[in-house]
Amino acid sequence: MEPARVQLPQGVHDLGPDEAGLRRELADLWSWLFDRWGYREVVPPTFEYYSTLASGFAGRKAERLFRFFDRQGRILALRPDFTTPIARLAATKLADEPRPLRLWYLGSVFRVNEARHGHRSEFTQAGVELIGAAGPAADAEVVALAVTALNRAGVEGAQVSLGHTGFLRALLAGLELDPRDEEAVVTELTRRNLVGLRDVLNTLNLDRRQFQALAELPQLFGGAEKLAAASQLAGNNTEAEAALDDLATIGRLLEAYGLGECVYFDLGLVRELDYYTGMVFEVYVPGFGYPLGGGGRYDGLTARFGLPGPATGFALGLERVLTVRERQGKIEGPKPPDVLVVALPGFEAASVREALRRREGGRVELAAGAMDEKEAVAYARARGIPCIVLVGSEMREIEVEVN
Amino acid sequence: MEPARVQLPQGVHDLGPDEAGLRRELADLWSWLFDRWGYREVVPPTFEYYSTLASGFAGRKAERLFRFFDRQGRILALRPDFTTPIARLAATKLADEPRPLRLWYLGSVFRVNEARHGHRSEFTQAGVELIGAAGPAADAEVVALAVTALNRAGVEGAQVSLGHTGFLRALLAGLELDPRDEEAVVTELTRRNLVGLRDVLNTLNLDRRQFQALAELPQLFGGAEKLAAASQLAGNNTEAEAALDDLATIGRLLEAYGLGECVYFDLGLVRELDYYTGMVFEVYVPGFGYPLGGGGRYDGLTARFGLPGPATGFALGLERVLTVRERQGKIEGPKPPDVLVVALPGFEAASVREALRRREGGRVELAAGAMDEKEAVAYARARGIPCIVLVGSEMREIEVEVN
Repeated sequence: MEPARVQLPQGVHDLGPDEAGLRRELADLWSWLFDRWGYREVVPPTFEYYSTLASGFAGRKAERLFRFFDRQGRILALRPDFTTPIARLAATKLADEPRPLRLWYLGSVFRVNEARHGHRSEFTQAGVELIGAAGPAADAEVVALAVTALNRAGVEGAQVSLGHTGFLRALLAGLELDPRDEEAVVTELTRRNLVGLRDVLNTLNLDRRQFQALAELPQLFGGAEKLAAASQLAGNNTEAEAALDDLATIGRLLEAYGLGECVYFDLGLVRELDYYTGMVFEVYVPGFGYPLGGGGRYDGLTARFGLPGPATGFALGLERVLTVRERQGKIEGPKPPDVLVVALPGFEAASVREALRRREGGRVELAAGAMDEKEAVAYARARGIPCIVLVGSEMREIEVEVN
Repeated sequence: MEPARVQLPQGVHDLGPDEAGLRRELADLWSWLFDRWGYREVVPPTFEYYSTLASGFAGRKAERLFRFFDRQGRILALRPDFTTPIARLAATKLADEPRPLRLWYLGSVFRVNEARHGHRSEFTQAGVELIGAAGPAADAEVVALAVTALNRAGVEGAQVSLGHTGFLRALLAGLELDPRDEEAVVTELTRRNLVGLRDVLNTLNLDRRQFQALAELPQLFGGAEKLAAASQLAGNNTEAEAALDDLATIGRLLEAYGLGECVYFDLGLVRELDYYTGMVFEVYVPGFGYPLGGGGRYDGLTARFGLPGPATGFALGLERVLTVRERQGKIEGPKPPDVLVVALPGFEAASVREALRRREGGRVELAAGAMDEKEAVAYARARGIPCIVLVGSEMREIEVEVN
């Protein structure tokens, strides 16, 4: 056998006990919360056919999937998100369940080129999909649940940027651009690259109003007054008006959720994946440069799997939430056990019986083999266990000073 | 874009809400239990370098790994088990933590040719690794914890088969067989193929005693009397005696755990993976043809990653546990919400405020958009929700008959 490597590939990580404990804590909390809102968990497979998963990763983005072959030479891929597999599941195994479907998930997703930016190529997403519900109430629900999930996780100061793919689509529809030029505009908007955006726009044959509408899109960020400004920029555009009305209604419902203070309209928001069709949003905290999560409406996706219908949802990045919590000073590792049970030599069986106290819910570590008192105290101190029960011809409790 | 496939690759599955709910329930329960015994969770990556993971899957078994390439052409693989990655983690990131390390895990593992037998190629393992502890007390602890985990999961009648790689090693050591012949013997033992075993033994140049010792190995299954029979079969063999003494001590400790009734010695037990060095075990329930889990001692594995030391552990197959529970009639899906809050048209914001009762822990689904009473009752009935709160100019509760 060749010697074993101890290094990990770029972009993947071990979670040690502290990080894994925090991840478990968040998973428990979100599992509880999503259940309270009527959502049920589903677990799609870690990999499936590439052609199933490619929906959000068309064109050059396909390079970001980890791909491999099955024995028949078909292309498989590790899931790059949960939305597409869950849309497939909703359109097949769950096709006959009453609509809307409320589903949640938590697990690893995989994307190749995140590693280029020092990002993870395996990371944990948790989120929900609300499938079979059109309209602003469904969109408001998923935004509110995303913010509630972050608040419950102890994240302070979460802010929502709320945009709409329909508004940009309306602006672009009148221009009859070459598809490659349109892609260039969208790419610069996605990157929020204002200079790059103006450079691209300068190469196009636009009149002054058209140029201005696209160039100013990234500045349409703020309260309800930005919806009015957007309306003016778009001119007399029915599709743009419909998108702005939709956003206004979602905004009002989010006020009813008590979230009016943390929601901003952001008409320049463009999400990276290709399947969004309506409201889109991202959640940020001040001072952290990446969104903690985001989502939006994707009314065309289940149709790809044979069952047309509306849908909306979000995903949160669990590792980013843990990073923010750490920066906000809210990190505690798992607690050590309450008691260490130690056998003196010859009393191993008696120590096993003592450790059966676990049945009453006690958190009890049983020393793996006999020790003397000195060894027991040294070990308990190193592990942070505050109490030893020493099992010999009689039972003795020893308190241990721990930090 | 090419049309999306709706089929899943062979051997992988979606967990719908019922199965995912049960999986979550088991994960919660085992998380609680392992913590009670002083174990901390760790999460290794889903894939890493093939050469790291190959320890338990040498030779032809390497074909059972899902392998692919990184951009530099290095071979990656999906983890086929957790023991090897956790041994690596213990020898690197956790090298300086006090010994023994008690670690647990829960997640997917991936093996190609399980699909041939209609098995899964992705399935869920949960288990523990007790690293840095030699001796029978550590082995007894992991066996006891495996059985306790199954009992807590509601599995009835779990039985342990307890074997020892040292006993077979001792028998084989004296024979000086060609490595290929030795592998053939081990393979037939692993399959518990008594006829095949005799066929192989007949091709070898063995004396009557040697033949008998190996041919009768699979029948050495039962209580403490089988240890005496094994001792006699082995003749005056020091290594064999040491293995049998080890098993006898582990058996006595398991009696102290209250598990005397469900433990059987099984000297013919050979586990499939290559890294075991001492005690090995499997857990069965009557009438179910596959082990629900198993494990054993693997004292050589962390040394492959630069930090020699003893270790022992187990893995349980979560899907098999769910199958057994289902056969034993103990399956219940997730409960529907307690209340459906529905807005009459125009009262959407008021219904949002009513749904904020969730803050007190209520399990409340909010209808995604206004409905009339008839639609609300039909939906609540389909979802199994027993109570509707209809929000209009006043609030009205409606009880719903559900099955």
